Amino acid sequence: MRNLRFTLSYDGTSYSGFQTQPDGNTVQDQLEEAIHMLTGEKVKITSSGRTDAGVHARGQVVNFLTSSRIPVDRWCLALNSRLPRDIVVYEAEEVSLTFHSRKSAKRKTYCYEIRTSRFPDVFHRAFEVHYPTPLNIEAMKEALSCFIGTHDFTSFCTTRTTMENRVRTIYEARLEYLPDQDDPARGLIQIYLTGSGFLYNMVRIIVGTILQVGEGKEKSSEIPVILAAKDRRKAGPTAMAKGLTLWKVEYE
Amino acid sequence: MRNLRFTLSYDGTSYSGFQTQPDGNTVQDQLEEAIHMLTGEKVKITSSGRTDAGVHARGQVVNFLTSSRIPVDRWCLALNSRLPRDIVVYEAEEVSLTFHSRKSAKRKTYCYEIRTSRFPDVFHRAFEVHYPTPLNIEAMKEALSCFIGTHDFTSFCTTRTTMENRVRTIYEARLEYLPDQDDPARGLIQIYLTGSGFLYNMVRIIVGTILQVGEGKEKSSEIPVILAAKDRRKAGPTAMAKGLTLWKVEYE
Repeated sequence: MRNLRFTLSYDGTSYSGFQTQPDGNTVQDQLEEAIHMLTGEKVKITSSGRTDAGVHARGQVVNFLTSSRIPVDRWCLALNSRLPRDIVVYEAEEVSLTFHSRKSAKRKTYCYEIRTSRFPDVFHRAFEVHYPTPLNIEAMKEALSCFIGTHDFTSFCTTRTTMENRVRTIYEARLEYLPDQDDPARGLIQIYLTGSGFLYNMVRIIVGTILQVGEGKEKSSEIPVILAAKDRRKAGPTAMAKGLTLWKVEYE
Repeated sequence: MRNLRFTLSYDGTSYSGFQTQPDGNTVQDQLEEAIHMLTGEKVKITSSGRTDAGVHARGQVVNFLTSSRIPVDRWCLALNSRLPRDIVVYEAEEVSLTFHSRKSAKRKTYCYEIRTSRFPDVFHRAFEVHYPTPLNIEAMKEALSCFIGTHDFTSFCTTRTTMENRVRTIYEARLEYLPDQDDPARGLIQIYLTGSGFLYNMVRIIVGTILQVGEGKEKSSEIPVILAAKDRRKAGPTAMAKGLTLWKVEYE
């Protein structure tokens, strides 16, 4: 048996998330189907983590065991020709049998994009949220920095989760702002979060809360209080899925 | 009567071009329908020029006469809420009755995007052509520069045209290249062409010919010969519509 690791990007707009669901229509289903068409094998793919319905990926990592002898450098083209155009596998590597795309992951980075321009950007509309309100960028940066470190993220996790341990470490949290030429109070906001791992809806609830800070509805100094409360109701709303992209997954 | 001028962007993927067709499904139809919903008037829009089926616009300009008294600063939001999400009107201005978006135009700029990366970019796939072959960028730049100036563009115009005068002036022709980090021989090519006006399919045939130069199938020194031949069969194929975007239209 060989253990193959793929890196892929996808436009999550049309999918019910990464992970196989009873209703089908997931990225995992598409990948497993393409592998089946190519090799005749029914494999079970492991990913670095599920992404929710509508969430995108620039660098999702998956692995699976196969007895296929197809050389590793042939896999990308062979799979892409069998995949829909909104999924692209761009790296394939043979790895040791001990590699597990979720358990071996050391750091994951997500990016969330918000455009506060007066009008939406037609060409990027599927990958960012249009939020046509000037926001207090400095306050948002302050709020964001409060998440760095090891915290219990119960307040920033959907109550539907079954995960018992809600302690996670955020290594980096960065906000980049590209102001519009004609109105520098508006522009594109990119929020990058790098952590050991993320709970269900965690990035989207963090972003929803930071947006409230940007609007002046919440103070950045409240973030530590919300974290300490361990109560989902204290945090802001869950930001829309389409603004979120799994940026990269790092391994040792 | 007032003469209103709008600037708009659109993702042309789903449309049969800008201009009204017997089969419908054009950007013009959508705009006229949205104006009708807003004002009750059946107006006839004039544009700076048609764009082909599948071609996009970042700065298309249109104008039309209306007796509506809606203040000019209300139009963008009012129309966008009545338009599909792949069309966004972002500038509205009241202009003199003599303004005509096609006849008054002084310069038009188109951009054509080609990605020679090994794999397509999922997030930009609708707006660029994936051409996974390393190309000779310097030769393409040389070929492109041959188009600058006033020429008879019969060789670079579809034979279906009824336009008698095929003389046009290209003011600027520029190729920008953003190499891939992992393989600088591949990357994103952006070809910008600014001219007095363009014939039917002209930019796409110029790009199709430059691609042949990039692949080494044609020499850049042949461009003046192809121009002089005034024969469509001498030029390269018509490049795909989806890589083309009407970038901007300039007026005095």
